[in-house]
Parts: sequence; structure tokens; C-alpha cells
Amino acid sequence: MTLDLAQDPVALTAALVDVESVSGAEGHLADLVEAALRALPHLQVDRDGDAVVARTRLGRGRRVLLAGHLDTVPTAENVPSRREGERLLGCGTSDMKSGDAVLLHLAATLPDPAYDLTFVLYDNEEVQAARNGLKRLAEQHRDWLDADLAVLMEPTSGQVEAGCQGTMRVQVAVPGRRAHSARGWLGENAVHAAAPVLATLVRYEARDVEIDGCTYREGLNAVRIEGGVAGNVVPDLCTVTVNFRFAPDRSESDAEAHVREVFDGWDVMVTDSAPGALPGLTAPAAQHFVEAVGVTPTAKYGWTDVARFAALGVPALNFGPGDPNLAHTREESVEVVRITEAEALLRGYLQSAHP
Amino acid sequence: MTLDLAQDPVALTAALVDVESVSGAEGHLADLVEAALRALPHLQVDRDGDAVVARTRLGRGRRVLLAGHLDTVPTAENVPSRREGERLLGCGTSDMKSGDAVLLHLAATLPDPAYDLTFVLYDNEEVQAARNGLKRLAEQHRDWLDADLAVLMEPTSGQVEAGCQGTMRVQVAVPGRRAHSARGWLGENAVHAAAPVLATLVRYEARDVEIDGCTYREGLNAVRIEGGVAGNVVPDLCTVTVNFRFAPDRSESDAEAHVREVFDGWDVMVTDSAPGALPGLTAPAAQHFVEAVGVTPTAKYGWTDVARFAALGVPALNFGPGDPNLAHTREESVEVVRITEAEALLRGYLQSAHP
Repeated sequence: MTLDLAQDPVALTAALVDVESVSGAEGHLADLVEAALRALPHLQVDRDGDAVVARTRLGRGRRVLLAGHLDTVPTAENVPSRREGERLLGCGTSDMKSGDAVLLHLAATLPDPAYDLTFVLYDNEEVQAARNGLKRLAEQHRDWLDADLAVLMEPTSGQVEAGCQGTMRVQVAVPGRRAHSARGWLGENAVHAAAPVLATLVRYEARDVEIDGCTYREGLNAVRIEGGVAGNVVPDLCTVTVNFRFAPDRSESDAEAHVREVFDGWDVMVTDSAPGALPGLTAPAAQHFVEAVGVTPTAKYGWTDVARFAALGVPALNFGPGDPNLAHTREESVEVVRITEAEALLRGYLQSAHP
Repeated sequence: MTLDLAQDPVALTAALVDVESVSGAEGHLADLVEAALRALPHLQVDRDGDAVVARTRLGRGRRVLLAGHLDTVPTAENVPSRREGERLLGCGTSDMKSGDAVLLHLAATLPDPAYDLTFVLYDNEEVQAARNGLKRLAEQHRDWLDADLAVLMEPTSGQVEAGCQGTMRVQVAVPGRRAHSARGWLGENAVHAAAPVLATLVRYEARDVEIDGCTYREGLNAVRIEGGVAGNVVPDLCTVTVNFRFAPDRSESDAEAHVREVFDGWDVMVTDSAPGALPGLTAPAAQHFVEAVGVTPTAKYGWTDVARFAALGVPALNFGPGDPNLAHTREESVEVVRITEAEALLRGYLQSAHP
């Protein structure tokens, strides 16, 4: 079996979906992608694990990178793909083999673009960050990712989502002193003592921050609360886990300082965090992209791999044909017109001379 | 092996401790107790399961019942008993084989008391209420428990503890609406919404209630709080489990009505409850007991089997030689002088003519 990258991107999406590639088992699909790209004389192809990178060497002044992950969440009796009217159904149709198909079709059919191009197809995006193929490339082959703009083809329904917010989780630990609940006054109830922590969360006023015309909306939410020893014991510990989603004008250390200030006087421990990414819309390649596709960028609230590019100093956007609301569902599907549109918009952008 | 009930109650305590009788495995000890009591011509002996009841039939105007459970919590390399100076160490020394020894010694050596006497030794007090031997007797042999006063010889360090408080657990369920925490404003955070429940607990002013000279101190405590779906999800449910310890002037339904009033507007579900017991110190046999032992009664805060007697209309007190603070510990022990004192005080009470 070989992949025909020159075929219509809708048909190519179906072909990609029909090769199952659940995270950790995307090797066969990576082999097919690598072989198809190596058949193209205008691309230099490299591979690391199950990540494949193909680059033009045209000596253009600027380079645009298109990226997509090859893996999917576990299938749910939704492979192979099937067509129903104007939709293509199946695992990965939205997240994100339709994006991969647009990317691969452009790789095969744009031998003379206005920018030098880099195509990145990587593994293990749908699982824990330590396994992420893009993270591995950034650490081991930093030069493969050089670019003036990265377009991550994650599902956005054809919208342009810029940058992303950071995320930090902290545990606020409220101590008490155990006692038998029949003599509760001999103890200190840690759950009662957590009342002001919850009151602080209720009172908190989250910022809206505008950067490059995109409004980032922060949020501070308890995502877990736990306390209790037994049905007849005054609890000696109550733990509130708080998730802070922060606009990309804050660094992780700024975010931590802010959370510590909010919970001043409490025992606060950071359990995990990931930085945000500035939208980077002032970069010339990004400005040109926004003009070419003619869509007003909006802020990305969820964390995505654009933050990895931002950490490398590469402005990055999310733009893809898939529907984010259908990602990871049993009923996952994509509107075929979004695939065709995304291909046409990107082709126009990559062919037009930079102003 | 036979039990010598006439021996010194300290030595008898050691003998009882040396026969292991963890809840559910007290049959051998019950056999020994039954055989020893049956050897006494002045007592009528009945048995149900591993509960043994012995009664005088002297035609006295009033009857006093002494009760103790035969079972212990699981041993912790603390059987057989051993003597260290003024203490006897071992599993059950405090809770409550020292009380059982006093009871059994009196059964054997008081053939002509001022009251008719009932001696109750029962099984499975240290486990779930459904298995409790005294509960079984109350249901199946109500007449065996007839008395004007019941003295439960649980560990009180020689104090007289009267009545007991009731206990009720309720779950206060606070709803919300799930959302991704990156877009928290699309949801309603159930943990945040629990803030006023905790504030209510902090604000709550518990009553002190005086009955028959004993002060009962109520308490309303969260004993558990739970909420949370995942680290990136706004929780849609937070559950606070609250334990209300209430003075015996409230019935269970009064207590429930009070808790529902405190948490008015919230979803409150009663998960379990047990009634309190009035101290019953105005009953003549109880007044006589208090005068005879010369100790001012205090309120019992924890729930004990005295409430079962109260439910049968039998005034009941806790009075025993064991130390409640050492019950259930690996280092469980009893001061031998408390055993001797308790035996002497009870003997004086049971021999003196009622005023």
C-alpha cells in the first residue's frame, strides 16, 4: 500500500483515517507518510521515531512550517471512515487527519511556493506530554523546526486561533487537628477552615487581556476538593486543587506569583504548569497569513502545541478544517467543504509573493 | 479450663483477657462464662448466640442490670495480658474485660443483694450495629432486659457518664455544570458554590444543653468533602458530609428538622442516624446509684449502647474501670486500682437497701 498525496484532500483524509494510528501505534502510518514524501524530489525528508519532517531547500527569505500529529485517541468502532452526505465520519476525521491531508497534499503539489516550507507529522500528541513527538523534535532536532511562522492544523473549523493561554495547577492545603466528632471542639476542622479559600475563589475577578487584537480570558477554578478521615472524625486536612488559566502576557513564574498572592497566607504547592504562547500576529509571515486567509484571529483558550513553537521563538497559529467540538467523540466527523476550503486558503497564502 | 468467678477481679480480668475474643470469635469465651454462671445456684442463665444473660429471682421490688460486651477489637500482639507495676496490659483490659470481671465477680459473690440483678454479657459490640448482640437481645428477648436501671460497664475511668448524644450524618449535595476549565465561564463551579455551605458550618453556634445536671454539648462538623472530575474540568458536583451530634432532648426527627433548617435551600440527604439517650437520673434506682458511688455524673458525648436501653425505656449509665483513652490502642491497659474500686462501689450500692 502506498499513499497518493496528489489525490483530492477529502479522499486523502479518508485514506489516512483508514490506517489506524492510535497513540503509540502510529508507526505504520508514519512509514506510509515517509515513503510518500521521499518520493517527492523537491523535499528533503528526515525521520525521528514516528515523526517525519520534510523540507524544501529553495533559498526563500522566509520559511513557513505546517504541522499535524499522526496519532488519534482510541478508536470507537468508527474506523474505517465513511461518507454521509457532506460529512466524512471516523476516528481522526476532525482531530486531525483532515489537517494532515491538507498538509500532505500541499507538500506534494506545491513544488514552487513563495516561502520555503517545512512539513511536520508527529506522534503521541493525544497522550502525556513526556511522549509528545513535537517535544522530542524540539529537544533533539531543534534545527528541523526553524521557521518564521508555524501553522498547527489542529481542528478550528477554519478559524484562526492565535497563541494560547498558559495553565497551572496548584494545591492549596488547609490544615486542621483531628478529633472525634462527638468532641469536635477538641479539634480544628480543616474542611471548615477551607471556607475562606472557596470564598476567595468566588470573589476572584478574572482578567480579560487584549494582545494583538485577541482577547484572552483568564480563569481561576477549583477542579478538586478533598478532605475527610472517617464519618466520626474531625478532618485534619482539606486540599483544594486550583487550575489557573492565564493569558500569555504572564510567564509561568508571573502566574505562580499571582496565585500565591491570591492565596496569601495559605500553603500553596504548584503541581504542574505549562506556559502560554503570545499570538505573535505582528510577525510579517503571520500578518501575511491573516490577510491571505481573510479570517479575524481569535484567542486560543485551551493549551496546544503552539506553545512549544512559541517557546522556540517561532510564532504559531492554530488553523485547521476539523471541528473541535467533535474531536474525541464516537461520532467524530468533518465537513468535507472545510477540507477543500482550508486547502485552497493555504495554497493561496503559500503561493502569493510576500508583500 | 473453667473460669473462677470468685477470684480477685484483677486476676479475673487477666483470665478473661487471656481468652482471645475478637468480634465474631467470642464463642469460646461465651462458653466459659455460661458454664461458670450456670454453676451458681442463685442465677437463672439464658443464652442467645454468644450472648449470656443471668438473673436473680428474689422478688425484690426493683431490678438493676449490669452489662458488658465480651468481644474486643483485633489483637495487636498484646495477648496474653501482663502485669507492669500498677497496671494490667493487654487487648481488652480497658475495653472492657475489666468491667466484665467486676460484673462476673459480683454475679458470683452477691447471692443476697438489695435489688434483683441481671447480668448481660454480649457479643459483637465493636463491629457494625447490625451484628450487635445487645440489639439482638432487645429484638428477640426483650423481657431478659427488663430493669429499673442499666449500668453499662464501658470504660469511664470510674466516672459516671449519663445518657448519650445522638448522631446523624447528612450529605449536602451542591450542584454545578461541567465545562472545560480553559473556558470555565461556560460552566458553574460546584466547589465554588459550596462556599456558603462551609460558611454556614463556620458560623454555626452549637447549643450547650443541661439535663438532670449534665451538660450536653452539641456539634455540627463536616467530616468529608468531595468534588472534582479531572484536572481540566469545572466540577459539576460537590458533596459535603456533615455529622450532627445532638443532645438527647432532641429526637432523631427533631435533629433532622434542625439540620434541614440550617442548610435551608440545599439538597440534604440523611445517610444514617442514631438517637441519643436521656440521662434518666431522676429514676429512683439511678439516684440511689449516684449517691452510693459518690461521683457527680457527667454527660456522655459519644454514642454507646446506653441508647439501646433508653429506647427500651430503661434508664442507663456508663460506669466502668477501664480508661477510654486507651481503648483500641496497641498499648491498652488498665489501672488495677480502678478495678478494685469499681467492684467495691458497685458492691456497696447493690447491697445497701434502697432508701
